[in-house]
Amino acid sequence: MSLDAVLSRIDSDLDASLDRLMELLRIPSISTDPAYKDQCDRAADWLVADLKSLGVAAGKRETPGHPMVVGHVEGDGPHLLFYGHYDVQPVDPLNLWNRDPFDPEIQDTAKGRVIRGRGAADDKGQLMTFVEACRAWKAVNGTLPCRITFFFEGEEESGSPSLVPFMKENAEELKADLALICDTGLFDSRVPAITTMLRGLLGEELTITAASKDLHSGMFGGPAINPIRVLSKIIASLHDENGRITVPNFYDGVPEISEEQKEQWSGLGFDARSFLGGVDLSEAAGEKDFSALEQIWSRPTCEVNGIIGGYTGDGFKTVLPSQASAKISFRLVGDQDPLEIRENFRAMVKGMVPPDCSVEFKAHGASRAGAFDTSDPAFEAARRALSDEWPDEAAFIGCGGSIPIAGHFARLLDVTPMLIGFGKDDDQIHSPNEKYDVESFHKGTRSWARVLAALSE
Amino acid sequence: MSLDAVLSRIDSDLDASLDRLMELLRIPSISTDPAYKDQCDRAADWLVADLKSLGVAAGKRETPGHPMVVGHVEGDGPHLLFYGHYDVQPVDPLNLWNRDPFDPEIQDTAKGRVIRGRGAADDKGQLMTFVEACRAWKAVNGTLPCRITFFFEGEEESGSPSLVPFMKENAEELKADLALICDTGLFDSRVPAITTMLRGLLGEELTITAASKDLHSGMFGGPAINPIRVLSKIIASLHDENGRITVPNFYDGVPEISEEQKEQWSGLGFDARSFLGGVDLSEAAGEKDFSALEQIWSRPTCEVNGIIGGYTGDGFKTVLPSQASAKISFRLVGDQDPLEIRENFRAMVKGMVPPDCSVEFKAHGASRAGAFDTSDPAFEAARRALSDEWPDEAAFIGCGGSIPIAGHFARLLDVTPMLIGFGKDDDQIHSPNEKYDVESFHKGTRSWARVLAALSE
Repeated sequence: MSLDAVLSRIDSDLDASLDRLMELLRIPSISTDPAYKDQCDRAADWLVADLKSLGVAAGKRETPGHPMVVGHVEGDGPHLLFYGHYDVQPVDPLNLWNRDPFDPEIQDTAKGRVIRGRGAADDKGQLMTFVEACRAWKAVNGTLPCRITFFFEGEEESGSPSLVPFMKENAEELKADLALICDTGLFDSRVPAITTMLRGLLGEELTITAASKDLHSGMFGGPAINPIRVLSKIIASLHDENGRITVPNFYDGVPEISEEQKEQWSGLGFDARSFLGGVDLSEAAGEKDFSALEQIWSRPTCEVNGIIGGYTGDGFKTVLPSQASAKISFRLVGDQDPLEIRENFRAMVKGMVPPDCSVEFKAHGASRAGAFDTSDPAFEAARRALSDEWPDEAAFIGCGGSIPIAGHFARLLDVTPMLIGFGKDDDQIHSPNEKYDVESFHKGTRSWARVLAALSE
Repeated sequence: MSLDAVLSRIDSDLDASLDRLMELLRIPSISTDPAYKDQCDRAADWLVADLKSLGVAAGKRETPGHPMVVGHVEGDGPHLLFYGHYDVQPVDPLNLWNRDPFDPEIQDTAKGRVIRGRGAADDKGQLMTFVEACRAWKAVNGTLPCRITFFFEGEEESGSPSLVPFMKENAEELKADLALICDTGLFDSRVPAITTMLRGLLGEELTITAASKDLHSGMFGGPAINPIRVLSKIIASLHDENGRITVPNFYDGVPEISEEQKEQWSGLGFDARSFLGGVDLSEAAGEKDFSALEQIWSRPTCEVNGIIGGYTGDGFKTVLPSQASAKISFRLVGDQDPLEIRENFRAMVKGMVPPDCSVEFKAHGASRAGAFDTSDPAFEAARRALSDEWPDEAAFIGCGGSIPIAGHFARLLDVTPMLIGFGKDDDQIHSPNEKYDVESFHKGTRSWARVLAALSE
């Protein structure tokens, strides 16, 4: 095996590997919208064919939702599993995109070349960094460096309803020595990272119904109760004046941040002003007495992700709507129990619903936070390998997002998850004009070659 | 002149007059949506042609918005002006309609025959009651009973931006002895009404902007401020725990309800339980210490007519939106000054907008409340004429809605407005499945014949 030859091959094959990524990006595999079911299927087929071209015994595996893609290649050394997801977020508001989200393009920007399109960073671009590293390895060495299982999901952006059942049913097949997951980011553009703490996520949708139909506010305004007002009052009461969440017992299981950890994090030199300044904000608006980094990595949140009610078109309509609804999510940390929080949240909301109104809830996923064991020497080996590729030393970091799959590997299969990714803060994932830096893609692919070399030694 | 012959003619011509109304209802003249501009034009053309068929010198009069229709017929006796509007409300949510809103139909229901379709009650059906009364009169007598000006507007549902300028420019032409307006309702199905008090209306749209783009709540949730939360807090603070509106100086100019008026209103036997029960509500949710009828007729309100922000499609998206907006309207009474209230509302909202957020306002109309002089003997004459047609005596009543045109006639032209209409509480105006009872249409037409006879005597 020659790592240098593999890295050279990655460099010389960059254009072709970008072309392959563009093909995958052109498939609008929006998992949350049933209208795109066939497209999710197409993306899975594309991946199966691509893995087969690497000599991987790959197949599409049906689920009640979108299919999984699973592939195996035999080899000596450790058994690594690689996880990524081929589904993408919806694209609305479409009018804020500067081009068709599914007509991707390599663009020259002031900050360098970027791959523009839905899924470029989350997660197709990241997923392909690993596949391309394997392709280069195979081209140079004729085989892959060790036994590898590829595991691609198509429901990550819609709560992964089929994931746990599938993992349980196929536990033997998916059991590996280490699960590599590529769905996280760099610490900053010079510092690569292995993410070892993730927040959990609880999603709730609530709909308040008042009158049995929309009313005319001239005729009924006054005596008829307005569900938007009811909903606004509920939302306004979810935080106190210090930014703390008011759901009863919400902070049960939230760990104190140790002085040691605070010190390590403040040593990272995170610049909150520039992080927030990138999106035209200036100050951390979350819980009082916590820094922006502490708020993101180690504190739970409650956010309203969407709200709608009444007339929202152009102009004005003096309607008193019958219904109003909101999508609310909680990011969780430590040992917070999403199911208990769901129950307490719903009870609290029910207690605020006035006479003549009713509330309906819809669950949208519930995952616990994760903090992963880094005692396996593979972590230090991977950290060194990443440090070789990037300007500065790699760091073990926390992450504000939720990647439930990491917890599933640990809990369901007793496989240690290792989260390595190359996204940047300004990638605009889940937003219009999502991009992935060509540098992230290129150096990300090189990083995986280095990590594969380090782990299979 | 023979009133009985006119009434008979109305009876025998009912089917044909319904057919004519259906033609007008098929034109989707939604004034608030620019996509329907041509359709508003078509509705105006249809009315011009119909008036001409009655021998009225009618024409379409261009404005910067949708055209007015004005027609004159000479005659002896008083000069009456009749006002109605040919534009209709938008139809969303379309999925709650049981049929195409612009494919109207006569339906047999448990409560009698109804004309189902957008605009059936508001205001095409009501407008045509007067036109059909004139048609029958002309058929029987060869002429109309007195000098009449017809004045139809196409922007009533979108704030009437062209109305005041048009009335000022054409003041001489529109000056009459009395302005008949058909855009109100019966007191109940047995009791016809002349509406003598109307609430004013102030419409405001506000948009809160936080970050310069939508963010991922995993990455930014915590430190990044959420505009939906900001907006909810603003909305939640617009009322106190007694249902009073908290905008500073809001109640300036709100008159006390006199004991005499309270007595008169309670003598009407209004049944709040059955009024609210019709839309599956049970209790008056407005200001404490006021009855439902007092809340509707004589107290100001503040309502949220629409709200939107973030992801509102199927499924879930953990987005932290950049913007959230709401449409808010105030119903005004007495001498409340809409422009002062707008100023105070905006100042109050600005005071609640936290750092890193901005607010933008959009004005949507501002009209004062009206209470009209009923000392002209024409009012008692019209009241008697209405009483002759309906089972019970006609009443002078208040109305929760806003009909700015009434105030314009009084203030701009010094013409006393007389508001007579035949709508019912369950007509679902501004809502899906709008209807107008065939009885309202038929007896409404007969009512106008009686009123014309009484006023031209």
